[in-house]
Amino acid sequence: MAQKDRVNIALIGQGFMGRTHSNGWGQVSRFFKTPVKAVMHTVFGMPNEDPAAMAARWGWQNSSNDWQAVVNSPEIDLVDIVTPNFMHAPPAKAAIAAGKAVACEKPIAGTLAEAREMAEAAKKAKVKTFVWYNYRRVPAVALAHRLVKQGAIGEIRHVRAKYLQDWADESVPLLWRFDKKLSGSGAHGDLNAHIIDMTRFVTGGEITEISGAIAETFIKERKIMSGVAAGGIAAGMKSDKAEMGKVTVDDTVLFLAKFNNGAVGSYEAARQATGNQNRNGFEINGSKGSLKFDFEDMNYLEFYDATRPREVQGWTKIMCTHGGSHPYVENWWPDAHILGYEHTFANQAFDILQVLAGNEPTVPIPDFQDAYQTQRVMEAALICAKEKHAIKMSDVK
Amino acid sequence: MAQKDRVNIALIGQGFMGRTHSNGWGQVSRFFKTPVKAVMHTVFGMPNEDPAAMAARWGWQNSSNDWQAVVNSPEIDLVDIVTPNFMHAPPAKAAIAAGKAVACEKPIAGTLAEAREMAEAAKKAKVKTFVWYNYRRVPAVALAHRLVKQGAIGEIRHVRAKYLQDWADESVPLLWRFDKKLSGSGAHGDLNAHIIDMTRFVTGGEITEISGAIAETFIKERKIMSGVAAGGIAAGMKSDKAEMGKVTVDDTVLFLAKFNNGAVGSYEAARQATGNQNRNGFEINGSKGSLKFDFEDMNYLEFYDATRPREVQGWTKIMCTHGGSHPYVENWWPDAHILGYEHTFANQAFDILQVLAGNEPTVPIPDFQDAYQTQRVMEAALICAKEKHAIKMSDVK
Amino acid sequence: MAQKDRVNIALIGQGFMGRTHSNGWGQVSRFFKTPVKAVMHTVFGMPNEDPAAMAARWGWQNSSNDWQAVVNSPEIDLVDIVTPNFMHAPPAKAAIAAGKAVACEKPIAGTLAEAREMAEAAKKAKVKTFVWYNYRRVPAVALAHRLVKQGAIGEIRHVRAKYLQDWADESVPLLWRFDKKLSGSGAHGDLNAHIIDMTRFVTGGEITEISGAIAETFIKERKIMSGVAAGGIAAGMKSDKAEMGKVTVDDTVLFLAKFNNGAVGSYEAARQATGNQNRNGFEINGSKGSLKFDFEDMNYLEFYDATRPREVQGWTKIMCTHGGSHPYVENWWPDAHILGYEHTFANQAFDILQVLAGNEPTVPIPDFQDAYQTQRVMEAALICAKEKHAIKMSDVK
Amino acid sequence: MAQKDRVNIALIGQGFMGRTHSNGWGQVSRFFKTPVKAVMHTVFGMPNEDPAAMAARWGWQNSSNDWQAVVNSPEIDLVDIVTPNFMHAPPAKAAIAAGKAVACEKPIAGTLAEAREMAEAAKKAKVKTFVWYNYRRVPAVALAHRLVKQGAIGEIRHVRAKYLQDWADESVPLLWRFDKKLSGSGAHGDLNAHIIDMTRFVTGGEITEISGAIAETFIKERKIMSGVAAGGIAAGMKSDKAEMGKVTVDDTVLFLAKFNNGAVGSYEAARQATGNQNRNGFEINGSKGSLKFDFEDMNYLEFYDATRPREVQGWTKIMCTHGGSHPYVENWWPDAHILGYEHTFANQAFDILQVLAGNEPTVPIPDFQDAYQTQRVMEAALICAKEKHAIKMSDVK
Repeated sequence: MAQKDRVNIALIGQGFMGRTHSNGWGQVSRFFKTPVKAVMHTVFGMPNEDPAAMAARWGWQNSSNDWQAVVNSPEIDLVDIVTPNFMHAPPAKAAIAAGKAVACEKPIAGTLAEAREMAEAAKKAKVKTFVWYNYRRVPAVALAHRLVKQGAIGEIRHVRAKYLQDWADESVPLLWRFDKKLSGSGAHGDLNAHIIDMTRFVTGGEITEISGAIAETFIKERKIMSGVAAGGIAAGMKSDKAEMGKVTVDDTVLFLAKFNNGAVGSYEAARQATGNQNRNGFEINGSKGSLKFDFEDMNYLEFYDATRPREVQGWTKIMCTHGGSHPYVENWWPDAHILGYEHTFANQAFDILQVLAGNEPTVPIPDFQDAYQTQRVMEAALICAKEKHAIKMSDVK
Repeated sequence: MAQKDRVNIALIGQGFMGRTHSNGWGQVSRFFKTPVKAVMHTVFGMPNEDPAAMAARWGWQNSSNDWQAVVNSPEIDLVDIVTPNFMHAPPAKAAIAAGKAVACEKPIAGTLAEAREMAEAAKKAKVKTFVWYNYRRVPAVALAHRLVKQGAIGEIRHVRAKYLQDWADESVPLLWRFDKKLSGSGAHGDLNAHIIDMTRFVTGGEITEISGAIAETFIKERKIMSGVAAGGIAAGMKSDKAEMGKVTVDDTVLFLAKFNNGAVGSYEAARQATGNQNRNGFEINGSKGSLKFDFEDMNYLEFYDATRPREVQGWTKIMCTHGGSHPYVENWWPDAHILGYEHTFANQAFDILQVLAGNEPTVPIPDFQDAYQTQRVMEAALICAKEKHAIKMSDVK
Repeated sequence: MAQKDRVNIALIGQGFMGRTHSNGWGQVSRFFKTPVKAVMHTVFGMPNEDPAAMAARWGWQNSSNDWQAVVNSPEIDLVDIVTPNFMHAPPAKAAIAAGKAVACEKPIAGTLAEAREMAEAAKKAKVKTFVWYNYRRVPAVALAHRLVKQGAIGEIRHVRAKYLQDWADESVPLLWRFDKKLSGSGAHGDLNAHIIDMTRFVTGGEITEISGAIAETFIKERKIMSGVAAGGIAAGMKSDKAEMGKVTVDDTVLFLAKFNNGAVGSYEAARQATGNQNRNGFEINGSKGSLKFDFEDMNYLEFYDATRPREVQGWTKIMCTHGGSHPYVENWWPDAHILGYEHTFANQAFDILQVLAGNEPTVPIPDFQDAYQTQRVMEAALICAKEKHAIKMSDVK
Repeated sequence: MAQKDRVNIALIGQGFMGRTHSNGWGQVSRFFKTPVKAVMHTVFGMPNEDPAAMAARWGWQNSSNDWQAVVNSPEIDLVDIVTPNFMHAPPAKAAIAAGKAVACEKPIAGTLAEAREMAEAAKKAKVKTFVWYNYRRVPAVALAHRLVKQGAIGEIRHVRAKYLQDWADESVPLLWRFDKKLSGSGAHGDLNAHIIDMTRFVTGGEITEISGAIAETFIKERKIMSGVAAGGIAAGMKSDKAEMGKVTVDDTVLFLAKFNNGAVGSYEAARQATGNQNRNGFEINGSKGSLKFDFEDMNYLEFYDATRPREVQGWTKIMCTHGGSHPYVENWWPDAHILGYEHTFANQAFDILQVLAGNEPTVPIPDFQDAYQTQRVMEAALICAKEKHAIKMSDVK
């Protein structure tokens, strides 16, 4: 790979994430000075998904209905997986077996066992792997990671993270996201996965105990749909049937945690937190300062620097859009020319290319091993909610 | 009482709360049209506290070093208790025995047993009791209570409450607040007590289970002081000794809870949450809307009304200072002439006078029985943190 | 005065400001350690205003219907004037003639000629004078003054000030505030007066030219009232008559200005700026930083420090409630125990006592000469709006 | 055009705006369902600008160094002009003469005379023209336009607009933006142009008088550069020379205005307003409500609805990212998946295609005639600042 001047990419899947990845792979070449050329080689989709149309729209050179052929094609260097969670492991393991680099949407897998297998297979095969925890690549979050690493907030004591949405009221039908077989879990895998990864990334700490947890399903039945939508958040999507089906995943999961650095933390994911559309954020309190992030104001990082003269101490709202100072931004626009959600994918695409070219990424990317750690925490929280007692992380493999 | 046109008040204690109550009893007569005259009759203090000076400054007509005499004086109608937590029960029980109305600072007592005894004694003696959970009387919080009661946010699903401070870094010496014998608990009794009461008040729901909890003491030793300060938050207070003593209370307590209305909740109290000086607040999500409050912006209540046309839905920042519309405000100033912390005490003083005169208070005041419920939740959270499993509230008496 | 240990105060007037001053003189003795005792000696009111009731409520020792007797009484040390604007000059001049210290509500007078006469009389008689531009004594504003003086924002280039209210819609009747004979002007004297003073205070600069101005009256007629209310903002006040009368003052005045330090500025006062109840604030941009204040969030000062590393530059929201660091606060409550509107009056009362005792005030208080400068700017803006060309301040006496 | 199924586009110019337009024309085909296909046919650049490289990067099919040939090519349907202001008129007039549709960056021209000629030429030739006042296509701004049109804020009384930046401190060299011959004006043409257009768009009102104005240049000399940068805001750009040259444009322009609907307004553009990187916004107060927008929080529109029950009135922060409700959004991402600066260009590209296909645009696009009106206001403000008296718009042609 390091000798080559290009990376041929295959996208396995379509849906919401197919769109974000396609855009990311396209924009990275237009906005960044990439170390190797990113070639949008082939997109895979089921016949009914019409991958040819997707290829035409987004600039994929080829399309295919046979993922195994794509994954094993000698022309492909990097396999990028965006299928529903239960379908991550098969193409990932095939790609690893074929010696390909693999990038996989989060969470890494539908079950912890699959995650462990994927991590082990990657390790054994020595292929490069990447998981799309894209929020690490919000400039404000990457800056938070750097500031903590520089010691700007001292010793960390409190981690508070939540990822709240409100799209899933009674009117939303029984999408694949509400079916445990297809999604693995509900808000937990969809949302807590992100904030577990994000806080591990920003703090550099690891969770050692889940001290308590609640998993709750407020809306226990939903209308069955004619065909289950493959796509993502489906606000406004209506069912055409009257028949009700059982929701088999959580609507919300809350848990408390202890860290190996002595900090304590709280986490919460929710899909009926009215007024919170995409409230993915954290507050981290250290002995010398604190950091606060909220994706709904994603261009800002809030920093309280307790080493400043007391007279002028306060929460500083840093507009993280300065090319010379803030991660990724020099590739985009001038100061305060606001960046958005989709930019995080181009930023990650760039960092994947960096790693494939043998360079350091702007900030660390989780590989399968790292994402497996996040999956372990997710699993432990669900066990805790069920068994109603604290769970030591060392007991969860 | 109802026949009398005045209420003679005795204040038992001094310190930070002595000051807030004295100011409250004074201002209520200057700003409100009270149903009976509030007479600041006697203030009690230890000889070294110089209650005569306090009387002169705040307008108490008399001072005393003998609380038992004060409590039993036939001239006193209402005994108002502001001593440290472990000293609530003795004067409260004496006052009840003497048939007096009693107002007590929060939490109602240093231990659950005392709280239960106080509640039972009051019930038996049929005296009127009041606990100073003053944040109920922030106009924004009282408005939140009313809106929930009117059904403005529908069925409640999420309760998120936290009370964060940051005054207790390593430089702060071993105040009484760090000594379990004097204070009962740390951040938990000081701060969680308020948010348990406040969310019970606003939601109208009761906690049925503590699902998980963490209690942590980050700073395990502090410098011993020459004389323990009776007063409140003592930021900047310095010890003159090098000797260290053990901290016997929590610095932070987090817990998760389930409610009898099906909602789930998270609570957190902290004293080293850098950047949060008095961050006492909640967010409550219901099926039709949500409410958000933060004491650091105490004049505002944020309301998300999900019944509005989607096009204009959003968080509305209600400046709760309109005399004709918002609780208590008609007694103070015109719109947006900001109110402060101390006003909550005058507001409560007014409502206590209302109840003593046989009228309805502006919004409900917790009596000893009600405050005992809050104390039960506090106790359950500590047990849960210690035993590391879920606790049913029905198991805590 | 300096020899005496007390100051006997007479309050001339009642209404909204009578209430704020009475509270200020009362609270200063309860919360501050004053250099001399503030004695609330006598309150004057018209017979129909019932000054005896006011005395009883607020703790004035005496009441009177004869302001001339009060002003000339040998027992009075300080005359405090809170009558409507057109009635400032007579008691002020009488008090000066009697050799008394005088504190006067803002604006100093109903006309520029009266303001000049008052300033000259005070200078000749060498009496101490004070004008109640109370917003100087918001801790955040006093801090802004100090920061600018320390050079924290460098050379000042932009001053942006506005004072917006929205109480004066069509339903409000023809109060004295809408009658030029009684009030002198409308929003201009009521609101621009404050922001002219506040920006002169914070920046230390003087306006040299009014470059352009607009004065507009949106609601040209209002219902006549049976008796003109003496009081302040009368939101909700209803007329019982159908007859309409002419509004003879402005609803809004905007103007642009140049300063002697090279800065440029814009000012705006409005009474129908829907959504702004008491939006009194400024933003000041300097070569090294900027400051922002909004009275509706009066406990905060926002500071942008452009000398910080670019990576962490941003607007810092300083919660100005730290006793050891922020002006006035050590007399009140712990950190983030929010202060309100009324505290500014107690703060000014304290500083007046300081000056009377021969001490330095916390931050400078405007005397009659200083307030006359503000009045000149006000006059120049009205001339500019009328004559439609720039006005040099040197042409306005 | 209406018969054709594609529009061949030529981009005349490169620089900052060349990049935003190229991205806009590319993304519109990937995200929108366009009525006709947008073909990125040819990009023109000076030889030293290397248009071939730009073509390769952004997907233009051809590149050229001969703008006249491009403009006159029969293959081109739409000429899109992004050259510096003084170079707008020549290609625009040539394109009009060739009967092409023309889209031009703002302000329409370097001088009012050119603007008038362009508008007249377009009218005579009956070609479709468009000016890239892109901020109309921020979803929040387009929503504001719709709400005002629906009467949501009633009769408009106050317009307050400012566009503040802070990139132009002493360290920035003498870019083309500081040279009147190349740019026409400074902050005025760069920034006031946008807010004049935006407030005309949102309010539907026209300015009838400039009542006062200030134009100021704080930094009168800057270091000369070796080659003038064609590009945009050049924060961090350093000169390699010691020689100083004269700045011939304004750093800031403020002005006051009256509208044909009785409203009054204030405008301000600045380049040294420290702490404001791209603070492009407005507040508009009407008799029934108000609207507030700030580009630094561009995903929000704030709405105060004074027709709501007083109890719950307040500023509502509308997150303008709901596909079913907010303009343009259904083409992008789910709720609160934040949009950025660049999306406004794709939104405008879509609307240009709509107009070219004979459809209605989402919200009105300014044509040359409309942009000429904005230019007249700009000119009047500069005359007012110079002549120091009010200017009637009817006197400016």
